[in-house]
Amino acid sequence: MQMKGPRGTQDLLPGVTEKWQYVEDKLKNLSMRYNYQEIRTPIFEHTELFQRGVGDTTDIVQKEMYTFTDKGDRSITLRPEGTASVVRSFVQHKLFGLPNQPTKLFYIGPMFRYERPQQGRMRQFVQYGVEALGSEDPAIDAEVMALALEAYKQLGLKSLKLVINSLGDIDSRNAHRQALIEHFSSVKEELCGDCQERLEKNPLRILDCKKDRNHPSMQTAPSILEYLNDYSRNYFEQVKRYLDVMGISYVVDQNLVRGLDYYNHTAFEIMSDAEGFGAITTLSGGGRYNGLVSDLGGPETPGIGFALSIERLLMALEAENISLPIKESIDCYVIALGEEANLKAAAIVQQLRQQGIQVDKDYQNKKMKAQFKAADRLQAKFVLVLGEDELAKNEVAVKEMETGNQENIKLDVLTDYLISKL
Amino acid sequence: MQMKGPRGTQDLLPGVTEKWQYVEDKLKNLSMRYNYQEIRTPIFEHTELFQRGVGDTTDIVQKEMYTFTDKGDRSITLRPEGTASVVRSFVQHKLFGLPNQPTKLFYIGPMFRYERPQQGRMRQFVQYGVEALGSEDPAIDAEVMALALEAYKQLGLKSLKLVINSLGDIDSRNAHRQALIEHFSSVKEELCGDCQERLEKNPLRILDCKKDRNHPSMQTAPSILEYLNDYSRNYFEQVKRYLDVMGISYVVDQNLVRGLDYYNHTAFEIMSDAEGFGAITTLSGGGRYNGLVSDLGGPETPGIGFALSIERLLMALEAENISLPIKESIDCYVIALGEEANLKAAAIVQQLRQQGIQVDKDYQNKKMKAQFKAADRLQAKFVLVLGEDELAKNEVAVKEMETGNQENIKLDVLTDYLISKL
Repeated sequence: MQMKGPRGTQDLLPGVTEKWQYVEDKLKNLSMRYNYQEIRTPIFEHTELFQRGVGDTTDIVQKEMYTFTDKGDRSITLRPEGTASVVRSFVQHKLFGLPNQPTKLFYIGPMFRYERPQQGRMRQFVQYGVEALGSEDPAIDAEVMALALEAYKQLGLKSLKLVINSLGDIDSRNAHRQALIEHFSSVKEELCGDCQERLEKNPLRILDCKKDRNHPSMQTAPSILEYLNDYSRNYFEQVKRYLDVMGISYVVDQNLVRGLDYYNHTAFEIMSDAEGFGAITTLSGGGRYNGLVSDLGGPETPGIGFALSIERLLMALEAENISLPIKESIDCYVIALGEEANLKAAAIVQQLRQQGIQVDKDYQNKKMKAQFKAADRLQAKFVLVLGEDELAKNEVAVKEMETGNQENIKLDVLTDYLISKL
Repeated sequence: MQMKGPRGTQDLLPGVTEKWQYVEDKLKNLSMRYNYQEIRTPIFEHTELFQRGVGDTTDIVQKEMYTFTDKGDRSITLRPEGTASVVRSFVQHKLFGLPNQPTKLFYIGPMFRYERPQQGRMRQFVQYGVEALGSEDPAIDAEVMALALEAYKQLGLKSLKLVINSLGDIDSRNAHRQALIEHFSSVKEELCGDCQERLEKNPLRILDCKKDRNHPSMQTAPSILEYLNDYSRNYFEQVKRYLDVMGISYVVDQNLVRGLDYYNHTAFEIMSDAEGFGAITTLSGGGRYNGLVSDLGGPETPGIGFALSIERLLMALEAENISLPIKESIDCYVIALGEEANLKAAAIVQQLRQQGIQVDKDYQNKKMKAQFKAADRLQAKFVLVLGEDELAKNEVAVKEMETGNQENIKLDVLTDYLISKL
């Protein structure tokens, strides 16, 4: 009986993992350039963290979590996103007490949501994200958006669009919320069941509904921007001013609402209008969440963050036909026939590897010709042949594949010879 | 109410994650040098995979798995180790049909075992491992052991010991098994409960028991080496010969038994006798598993692999007092006061980062002096000050912290200036 990996998960195989390595290295280096440091939180958390930190009314918490009871009778959940865990860790380890503030963190790792699997939406997917905790300076909102854009641009993506909005502070949100309830109450019966429920609990998310998006009431819904109080309006203006001086273009979309409950003030999305996608597509998003740290038991601390899915980033690369500069060749392949030559070959391989040279040999007793073929397939830059003559003279025949040049080299100078050539 | 991460898990914070990044980069480069390519399998699998692939009689499967039912009513288990998943993926994607054989794979990622947490034993831990599938050449057994040793040596570890044994092929193991049952039957009542159960199911693992290790019957137990048939004995001899010509020292320990059911022929462990550990300590291990691929539904395919825990590797570095060469400084810190200077600073920071320079600024409206302190703490190599004078002249004062030299630099040549100095 053959076994398969669980539905909605994927195996990343050689040929694909090299792309992931490349992208992840780029993201780590990007983070360092912006002075964000890595944090790694566990794959699972107490379920309560996500109920409180992501929000009880969200689809994630209501429908999509991998929740189970462990052998110690704890309710445990595979993390569906990164922010709640990072904030939990920030509070638990009192990072707010460290001298360098804001605390600027990045993470990269698998997340889990039990959704219907489809193109670009897996039950296990990988997110890269950053969180900046401890600053309510509009400049850092701009910094996070700059970093988000740069994550894509540095890989060569061009069809990018930064869309921003302000959700305002709590007072502004409450005023807007009241206006939304009044606005949608008159058409409640025409909205979908989810939206009817949202009307009382979280009317903002009606604006985000895929089923009701063409309902006429959407066009005339009150905009948050009309309900921003002075502080919120000024904050949003300053964010835009920072983006301007940094040379970052954006559009304001007053209907932009993020799916999570915890956002306030700045909300943004990175979108792609690459032709390969067919339609404009959201790649990633983020926003400010000034209440979250205290909601999770920490001191009042402002925060802003952003997360992207690597799967979707790779789709965007495909949509723009960008191929990553992945090295496909290896340095050396050693060819040998017979027991003694094979022992010598193993010793040579070991010696070269210890000097940092990438090298392989045959492990299937293949004939000479098949070994040459293997060297070819691996795109070896140098092929080393250990024939009887060479063996007797303590030499190896070294062929440089690009030029076709061949020389016999004494074994004791082989490493230096190859290092000088590679 | 404050929340904590689940028991037996840990958060890796800035200051620590840099070590992990360093070690993982080294392990990835090591794998490439040996021509192993990365595979990434999901965090969870169908439970049956581990029951069949790790072994129903093992402690892992019987006691330590994180098993739960998902919303689709599947029994799912967080992976307790890497080999079963890699072999499942090898079979599912028919990697055995690719032209380059053996298939040489490495993985790195979190694993999960519900054990009593203690120093160096977490419920979530990270394993790096390699698997070579498709070769029964003793040279590849030696290659895997060479790689295992090099994983530690390249980080500077010295107190290492390679311990090897042969468990023989199925015939040899069966003969030995029979001898073990006869040997221990006479003292059955004196053994611990677990070993009494093991006597019929898996008597080899009695040799591995921590409770009974000082029982007199252990010293006189029949050695597998006496029961190896010609093929197995010859195979083991050849493995040792390869290690010899590769310059790798080892000791044979006929009581070395690995905790998993699937091993045959070569079994090995890397041990440390560093003083910091107090006693000799197993760091990692591996072995040959020729039946596993067909057990999991694939064609008869020999295999050998190895896995190490990064947590334990880091403990070994501590035990030998080795500090890793982690970069702790940043390239630049930009200091500004006032709204206009801060806007200009944000533009400069953005421009420098886009050119690959690592730079940060203040986001808390700190006073000048506090900003200088922050630059100090971050060990900035260059501190850029935007005062009123500089702002008026479109310049910035650049101070090189190591030398104390200070120059005023025009903004349009600032990037080139810094790149030439860094």
